[in-house]
Amino acid sequence: MKHILIMGGDGYLGWPTAMYFSNKGYKVTVADNYLRRNESKRLNCLPLYEVPDLEERSKIWYEKTGYEIKVIIGDLTSPDIIRNIFNGKVQYNWAIDKNFSGLPETVVHYAEQPSAPYSMIDYVHSNFTIQNNLLVTNNLMYSVRDLSPETHIIKLGSMGEYGTPNIDIEEGWIDIEHKGRKNRFLYPRQGGSIYHTTKIMDTDLLWFGVRMWNLKVTDLMQGPVYGIETEESKIDNRLRTLFNYDEIYGTVINRFITEAVTGYPLTVYGKGGQTRGFLNIKDTLQCIYKAESSPAKSGELRIFNQFMETLSVNEIADKVKFVGNKLGFNVIIKSIKNPRKESEEHYYNPVHQGLINLGVEPHYLTDDVLTEMFKVVEEYKGNVNKDIIMKNIRW
Amino acid sequence: MKHILIMGGDGYLGWPTAMYFSNKGYKVTVADNYLRRNESKRLNCLPLYEVPDLEERSKIWYEKTGYEIKVIIGDLTSPDIIRNIFNGKVQYNWAIDKNFSGLPETVVHYAEQPSAPYSMIDYVHSNFTIQNNLLVTNNLMYSVRDLSPETHIIKLGSMGEYGTPNIDIEEGWIDIEHKGRKNRFLYPRQGGSIYHTTKIMDTDLLWFGVRMWNLKVTDLMQGPVYGIETEESKIDNRLRTLFNYDEIYGTVINRFITEAVTGYPLTVYGKGGQTRGFLNIKDTLQCIYKAESSPAKSGELRIFNQFMETLSVNEIADKVKFVGNKLGFNVIIKSIKNPRKESEEHYYNPVHQGLINLGVEPHYLTDDVLTEMFKVVEEYKGNVNKDIIMKNIRW
Repeated sequence: MKHILIMGGDGYLGWPTAMYFSNKGYKVTVADNYLRRNESKRLNCLPLYEVPDLEERSKIWYEKTGYEIKVIIGDLTSPDIIRNIFNGKVQYNWAIDKNFSGLPETVVHYAEQPSAPYSMIDYVHSNFTIQNNLLVTNNLMYSVRDLSPETHIIKLGSMGEYGTPNIDIEEGWIDIEHKGRKNRFLYPRQGGSIYHTTKIMDTDLLWFGVRMWNLKVTDLMQGPVYGIETEESKIDNRLRTLFNYDEIYGTVINRFITEAVTGYPLTVYGKGGQTRGFLNIKDTLQCIYKAESSPAKSGELRIFNQFMETLSVNEIADKVKFVGNKLGFNVIIKSIKNPRKESEEHYYNPVHQGLINLGVEPHYLTDDVLTEMFKVVEEYKGNVNKDIIMKNIRW
Repeated sequence: MKHILIMGGDGYLGWPTAMYFSNKGYKVTVADNYLRRNESKRLNCLPLYEVPDLEERSKIWYEKTGYEIKVIIGDLTSPDIIRNIFNGKVQYNWAIDKNFSGLPETVVHYAEQPSAPYSMIDYVHSNFTIQNNLLVTNNLMYSVRDLSPETHIIKLGSMGEYGTPNIDIEEGWIDIEHKGRKNRFLYPRQGGSIYHTTKIMDTDLLWFGVRMWNLKVTDLMQGPVYGIETEESKIDNRLRTLFNYDEIYGTVINRFITEAVTGYPLTVYGKGGQTRGFLNIKDTLQCIYKAESSPAKSGELRIFNQFMETLSVNEIADKVKFVGNKLGFNVIIKSIKNPRKESEEHYYNPVHQGLINLGVEPHYLTDDVLTEMFKVVEEYKGNVNKDIIMKNIRW
């Protein structure tokens, strides 16, 4: 029975990932410090519906399936807390069997401050994002180096690390010929927020660890994710992942659907030509699973671009409007002054073949998928607080 | 009268830089938290001779020249301390005129944990280096953005950010043609230590600030520096900069000379083919001055490669041996097992034209320069503790 550790197991992706692997028979441990949960309270941007905390969710999962997901609540920026997960001194906050689960074959590292706008609020939130994200990554890297060198690290990067360059975006690496000589380099990166910059720095760090200590690392350059339900959450509504619709924590498609359901105009930033690579949350799970099943080799930093289709903000707004109107909502699209400093019209041609080659079967943003999302959001329509959709964070 | 703020003003380069600008009639403020001073005590690697603390040195400087260098002792990882330097709430720890000096036209940012081996001791020192170096840079960036947007930031980078690629190293930027399209990018970077990786991250951060907020930034990719005396330190021996000869804080040329003087075999790491770009401390001062005099433009990240000649470790050892023997020392060269993981034979062809174009007149590592250094080290020969030369830090 393989053991997988999910760092950031309380998050939008963390909890569905934990259930997914548990359901496939993996031994699963989750760790989280409830950062996002606490910060979304403090910043007054609560999710669309309440979700039980990790300990409760694991208990519900166990009652429904008989599978145990061990829970650790702690701040992974503290080296001791993360090292204890590898040296056996860990105390689980929830578990059926309180004994040490042993070294994980794989760690999925989601444990970061995940919001670009959050990182741009002011210098306090900028400092916090840098410190939080880099210390967790570094603590993980050193723990694996010192205590579990065979462990495969799967780190969530971001397509936003690349920015929107005028050349094709390769999967992590580029061969450069210059003045008659050649070298392979990490593909050049320039992020659009402090958050994205910390993702670049994570890559800098792990690339160092791979070169120095032959770590096994997969870095997944993920695009914005949409979706709510996964196969496992259908067992019980209380197992649904959190869903944000505000400017700070809500990704664009999730936000647009909530806006459409509540009669709030879809907030297109500027010209709306911003193009990104998107994926369904179900595909995140598939991608992590495929990356886990065929790990990076010792001394390899393997990079995949993790998205299934590229769409512009205008295309998304049109799709949401079309489906929304069909469902009887009166959907209006409204361009607002772009709070970000970014290209609103640009070349964008990123490669994304590696995960497909590993067997991932893409979902796309179809009318059916949108309809399913509309239905869930409609259930909770009464919870939406329109005042928190825009928070006026400027770049 | 131009005002310059030197962050890290107690360091090997910081103090000579402060005197240099003071001597040229600049209004100078220095800030430091004595990190290196305290850590070199804690780690038992004291400099070759004692140097008075910043407050004492500024007092001596004032007594000898009539010029005031205002002193702030504080930890610049704290946002408040650094913002107070820009908003006028600062309390000087030493000054003749205690009134606020006003906004600086230029900030020279040396305020970092400066040692590669230090960053490699263990996870505690690695975390510390990341946190310290990035928070100071970020606090500076936000302070300038929020409180003094016209200020020119001169940040000390490192040639070590580039590593030793198989293609020529340009000055910070490279034009890439790929599948028929073109884009200009930051030259690819991959550092050889956690310390060097934080230097890469500094560049990531400041490049973000330049793109978002039109900051004016010069990033100086400096090679290892050698030397002791500068024009200003000749006024009084107590004004000499600190000089380390140990593995943690001593750069290679300074270390080799101390080894030669004390009959310790010159510690060549592995094959000794490691080639780097070197410069005299006097040239550091010239380079900073020239960069200060013709600042980067608004929205420009200007990058110069700051070194005057490339030398391999073996070439340096031979030069030190030659001069040492001529001066009557019995100099032995000994290859030791390389504590670092690095290429010991490699292509190395970095451009370094930008600073020369600004008028810098290079010094080289001549026999005369080495002889002058030997003389100073010999004065303090009795202070050398051979046991601390090698500290057995492994990569």
